Amino acid sequence: MLFHQTGYVSEDPRIEEPRGCGVDRPEDLTDTMDVLIVGTGPAGVIAAAQLSQYPDVNTRMIERRPDRLEIGQADGIQARSVETFQAFGFAEKITQEAYHLREMCFWNPDPTNPQNIVRTGRPADDPHGVSEFPHLIVNQARVLDYFLRSAERGPARITPNYGIEFVNLEIDQDQEYPVAVTVRYAAGEREGEERTVRAKYVFGCDGASSRVRKAIGRTLSGQGAHHAWGVMDVLANTDFPDIRTKCAINSVNGSILLIPREGGLLFRMYVDLGEVPEDDNHEIRKTPVEEIIRRANKIINPYSVDVKSVAWSSVYEVGHRLTDHFDDVDTEDRGTRVPRVFIAGDACHTHSAKAGQGMNVSMQDGWNLGWKLEACSPGARTSPCWTPTPRNVR
Amino acid sequence: MLFHQTGYVSEDPRIEEPRGCGVDRPEDLTDTMDVLIVGTGPAGVIAAAQLSQYPDVNTRMIERRPDRLEIGQADGIQARSVETFQAFGFAEKITQEAYHLREMCFWNPDPTNPQNIVRTGRPADDPHGVSEFPHLIVNQARVLDYFLRSAERGPARITPNYGIEFVNLEIDQDQEYPVAVTVRYAAGEREGEERTVRAKYVFGCDGASSRVRKAIGRTLSGQGAHHAWGVMDVLANTDFPDIRTKCAINSVNGSILLIPREGGLLFRMYVDLGEVPEDDNHEIRKTPVEEIIRRANKIINPYSVDVKSVAWSSVYEVGHRLTDHFDDVDTEDRGTRVPRVFIAGDACHTHSAKAGQGMNVSMQDGWNLGWKLEACSPGARTSPCWTPTPRNVR
Repeated sequence: MLFHQTGYVSEDPRIEEPRGCGVDRPEDLTDTMDVLIVGTGPAGVIAAAQLSQYPDVNTRMIERRPDRLEIGQADGIQARSVETFQAFGFAEKITQEAYHLREMCFWNPDPTNPQNIVRTGRPADDPHGVSEFPHLIVNQARVLDYFLRSAERGPARITPNYGIEFVNLEIDQDQEYPVAVTVRYAAGEREGEERTVRAKYVFGCDGASSRVRKAIGRTLSGQGAHHAWGVMDVLANTDFPDIRTKCAINSVNGSILLIPREGGLLFRMYVDLGEVPEDDNHEIRKTPVEEIIRRANKIINPYSVDVKSVAWSSVYEVGHRLTDHFDDVDTEDRGTRVPRVFIAGDACHTHSAKAGQGMNVSMQDGWNLGWKLEACSPGARTSPCWTPTPRNVR
Repeated sequence: MLFHQTGYVSEDPRIEEPRGCGVDRPEDLTDTMDVLIVGTGPAGVIAAAQLSQYPDVNTRMIERRPDRLEIGQADGIQARSVETFQAFGFAEKITQEAYHLREMCFWNPDPTNPQNIVRTGRPADDPHGVSEFPHLIVNQARVLDYFLRSAERGPARITPNYGIEFVNLEIDQDQEYPVAVTVRYAAGEREGEERTVRAKYVFGCDGASSRVRKAIGRTLSGQGAHHAWGVMDVLANTDFPDIRTKCAINSVNGSILLIPREGGLLFRMYVDLGEVPEDDNHEIRKTPVEEIIRRANKIINPYSVDVKSVAWSSVYEVGHRLTDHFDDVDTEDRGTRVPRVFIAGDACHTHSAKAGQGMNVSMQDGWNLGWKLEACSPGARTSPCWTPTPRNVR
């Protein structure tokens, strides 16, 4: 770490001096801003952490939830993401509290008794040593915490405004702040109130059902069928021997992806609930956790899992989906005007839980948007300096 | 790290649940307590961090200064101390912000022109690889910050009461809280007010001129002469080639111990001001920083150092000193009663700055006191369970 450049730093050198927009930054969402980030998921928080290094850019961030994410969601952290954490100074600290994924076990039906599963392989996770960084498992909530802290400690002192949801937007290129964004207070004293704020750029980091994406007329398309997963983070007694190893378990009764969780005790099971029929209308989401536990026990026969505490559970459907465009410029207008609205993360691509990719690629999206704004900073504050090219390299 | 034992931890797992005395811990110094730590130096803060793990013990800590230490004092962290930091969970984090001491250069008078210095050696700092931990340089203020945070995040939620100084103590073994301690508010609204509080045990971690030591009739004795050092943390331009390496510089004009500081830019020079005459009456302490800089330049001839910013400077006299006893039990009473007052760190032994030992051994003192109280916890709360033996092994 390089510090003491301009004098003596007495306290934590990770806390930078506020500068520019970071000095006396208003707590309330301002009427105008250079960048509005919608959503505090992995894509949004890394964009904020990066933009916090550019205090000439007035960046604001809104989040529908009334407070930080507490639990659940993604947990797989690829080595490239840990390298990214390194750039923001918290790789060592998050590694300390994470599960280190060093190998993976495969379980399949026992050929002599197909109702039972047997271990068929235990390959190293990274046999080629492709990265100096480890492959980690740690809750998405903690990843967000660290990026939010980076954003708050950077010179621009960026913090989210919680309890504010995105409603819609309109673009008028002739305005100094071309994007008029309607937001609604979703919590607190002003609950229900709608407001219009104006931004030069909007980052839609608002997830798979992104309203920002819909507002700019983009759609997700891809693999037809949705696949459903019952997910649970549990403390349990079990005789399954690889409970502290990542496992892909395939049995005649279905499949499980087992992920040991940080802290040494908790583990996550993604229990396969199968393809979702077209006419299901999200009925699958009502599957109770008891049913997920019952299925898990059937799958890992002859072993069993006696769940003592469910820290979190959910049923979700996910398909491989990709957006048609990553910004608000239609095909026929390419090159004629500057894009003003970008979508990132699940808003523009969704992934199966099995590969543990979703959070990782979302972070690269958000970082990419952040440093590309830097490429024209401080001009970003006074001129629409972005060209459509960034879209092409993403 | 082991967590999630009793359920799901959503936030930083390093922050433990408050228990026992840590639940609704009064902010003000209480009238009675199990342990009173006097001083928030290295010995005091590590004792607090350790005792914070024992929420059945009501531990309080007072400090004369109105707030945290901001700057200056010790900086050398031996590998054993980093191992100690590991036990409290912050080795990685403090290592990240520290200077790593890997080698040391020796400079001596040039035999062909003794007014100039030449490099005569560059040995590795740890040629035998005795520790898995590094040898670090980082400001004492940061070390204290980390231990204070550990103390605050432990189940007992121990925080210091700043602006309160120790005045005197009296011991009455027949009382439930045998040590009556007179304290005085040294800052804030109650400045000047004296109070008597009662403790079962007192840890005197109040430095070389310890009042706790004097109150129990102990003295420091040892090497007769005091040696004076002018110390300065500076940002400077220099042509001295080893400015980012620890150096022992001996010239015909005196000697310098050069310590590169964390952050990549700042460095510290201990400039030898020689033996202090018996009748000096601390006159040496008035040496201005300009004189220290002048001497430094004379010593490093033919090189020079052009100081641009002095982050901190001080002149201090230090001798090798050791106390006669480490607690309040006189020789003739050994074994007849329980010791109630212990001294630790500089209060019972002082060291030359040159070896970088002082802060390191002080931390081991404080840790030792902490875990030895554990050895009889939770009995510590209700019975005088300590025997005089701990004194013997320290």
